[in-house]
Amino acid sequence: MTAPFSFRLIASDGTARRGAFITPHGTVLTPAFMPVGTQATVKGVTVDELRRTGAEIVLGNTYHLMLRPGAERIATLGGLHAFMNWEGPILTDSGGFQVMSLSQLRKLTETSVTFRSHIDGTMVELTPERAIEIQSLLGADISMQLDECLKLPAPRAEIERAMLLSLRWAERCKRAFESAPPGRALFGIVQGGDDTTAPALPAERPRYLMGVGTPDDLVEAVARGIDMFDCVLPTRNGRHGAVFTRFGVLNLANARHRDDPRPLDEESAYPPARTYSRAYLSHLVRVNELLGQMLLSSINLAYYQGLMAGMREAIAQGRFAEFRAATREGWARGDIAPL
Amino acid sequence: MTAPFSFRLIASDGTARRGAFITPHGTVLTPAFMPVGTQATVKGVTVDELRRTGAEIVLGNTYHLMLRPGAERIATLGGLHAFMNWEGPILTDSGGFQVMSLSQLRKLTETSVTFRSHIDGTMVELTPERAIEIQSLLGADISMQLDECLKLPAPRAEIERAMLLSLRWAERCKRAFESAPPGRALFGIVQGGDDTTAPALPAERPRYLMGVGTPDDLVEAVARGIDMFDCVLPTRNGRHGAVFTRFGVLNLANARHRDDPRPLDEESAYPPARTYSRAYLSHLVRVNELLGQMLLSSINLAYYQGLMAGMREAIAQGRFAEFRAATREGWARGDIAPL
Repeated sequence: MTAPFSFRLIASDGTARRGAFITPHGTVLTPAFMPVGTQATVKGVTVDELRRTGAEIVLGNTYHLMLRPGAERIATLGGLHAFMNWEGPILTDSGGFQVMSLSQLRKLTETSVTFRSHIDGTMVELTPERAIEIQSLLGADISMQLDECLKLPAPRAEIERAMLLSLRWAERCKRAFESAPPGRALFGIVQGGDDTTAPALPAERPRYLMGVGTPDDLVEAVARGIDMFDCVLPTRNGRHGAVFTRFGVLNLANARHRDDPRPLDEESAYPPARTYSRAYLSHLVRVNELLGQMLLSSINLAYYQGLMAGMREAIAQGRFAEFRAATREGWARGDIAPL
Repeated sequence: MTAPFSFRLIASDGTARRGAFITPHGTVLTPAFMPVGTQATVKGVTVDELRRTGAEIVLGNTYHLMLRPGAERIATLGGLHAFMNWEGPILTDSGGFQVMSLSQLRKLTETSVTFRSHIDGTMVELTPERAIEIQSLLGADISMQLDECLKLPAPRAEIERAMLLSLRWAERCKRAFESAPPGRALFGIVQGGDDTTAPALPAERPRYLMGVGTPDDLVEAVARGIDMFDCVLPTRNGRHGAVFTRFGVLNLANARHRDDPRPLDEESAYPPARTYSRAYLSHLVRVNELLGQMLLSSINLAYYQGLMAGMREAIAQGRFAEFRAATREGWARGDIAPL
């Protein structure tokens, strides 16, 4: 991480932490959840709506953007912020995860990873230096080092080998990042496999658990001192009719919602969650209307953001354990009784 | 049409008319374009966004809504306005067109039309009385009589037969509509085939050309005295990457837009049409992102509404012919030059 990037711890409660970091595009309160804008858009959500859900920072995927529309093209068009019309901070991943998960064929050497594009089959080489260059072209407020991301579970020897390669690549990324504009940050990646490494991380730096998770995962990880998250679950599940609420996960295709005039959650701070009836949302899901995917994606993102805001407030007030217990109890109790 | 429904002619310019009608859910200025909310949603557009495009009235499809989620269900849930959270006026068609276009098997008698549902194959009977009942259950501000809608072209004798049947059904619909709440309107349908019947219609009543059309169709029909339109083109074309502008129809998948940082139309009154670059919209279309479908649907609807507003103003100022010529000239000139 470069020096000018500013992270500040505001409060802690047990191992849970509340903080804030400042980027060239604004401040982000932590613990923070970052919606995933894979292809320069959070699927099914306009940037105005994204703001209304409470999002302060968005994630972009280097792997997808380097293939389509291309990093140089986005740079010529003014960078990713201008391209997608999002004025807030952006974090970009480095592509390591997608190279592992999306590409059928990949060749890994000390120097680079070469993979076959899942779109048009061309071979693409990604070095640590190129990963940094791409993220600089995109104009990311926070860049991630290139790492080797293993499919888990994996043997410990294999995890160690990948960790050591990722460490050497971290050095190369750091050198490539030296000419970055002030205020931009580079995050290192700890490939810890299934082992929990949070206690070994420096307390004064933000801790980002990549690609996680369910609301329960988030609460449990915040309890262990994690500050940042990203995950496709809220939008992906929303597109398939599943909605996250304080009553747990509801499947709107379920017959019990079909005639229910009540909103998903009359106490939600996000208007669509208290405005539309369950019957209407259920109808949209059943007839596979775009609006169903749009509303449920936004409602899920707003639930995640509300959960993060609740945790931040609880940590500040020294009642995180209570908040965690009450939240889990709500999920365990399940949905409101049918009419 | 029942008496309390109030339509007022405000100005005319040649045969073009400017007017307004009042419904229980508000006033609609004419000439008016009604976005199509087939399944209780305008595809890909929230009701808030729909308002921002300038829409004052929405169309609902009786055929679709009677099958899913069902008219009685919507009535129990408070009617179509509450169901879809649209507070403005709603016009519902009577199902005649969809029975003709969507149903593989139909049996037409003097009494009713029986058709096979395109969803689950069940046989459904629709009488003129049931068509009115369904629209009343939905709570439509304007209901349409059940008609026999022919595939065109058709022999004149066949058009006459269908017209006479539709006329007898109009009588039955009118009787069934007698107990409707005050302020609601029932529109008759003139099945004129390909013949232009506008001059034969009473001047003091609104004239609605159903299912039309392209921007050019709208301008030409307004010139001939039409007051109301509905059409799926703006949303359907938007979902497929085609956008209506004052420069004509643009295909955003076209390579010329790929690196173009300019907006679709920097003079548009609708922010997304002047905020997003053509390059970004082209990217969204190419990678098939939901946001592309959403933005282009809204942008197209806003273009239609802007066109209607332009025509209303021109009629009021007695310069409709000039507006029509300038608009057509803009379309003929085509898109702005590539960079």
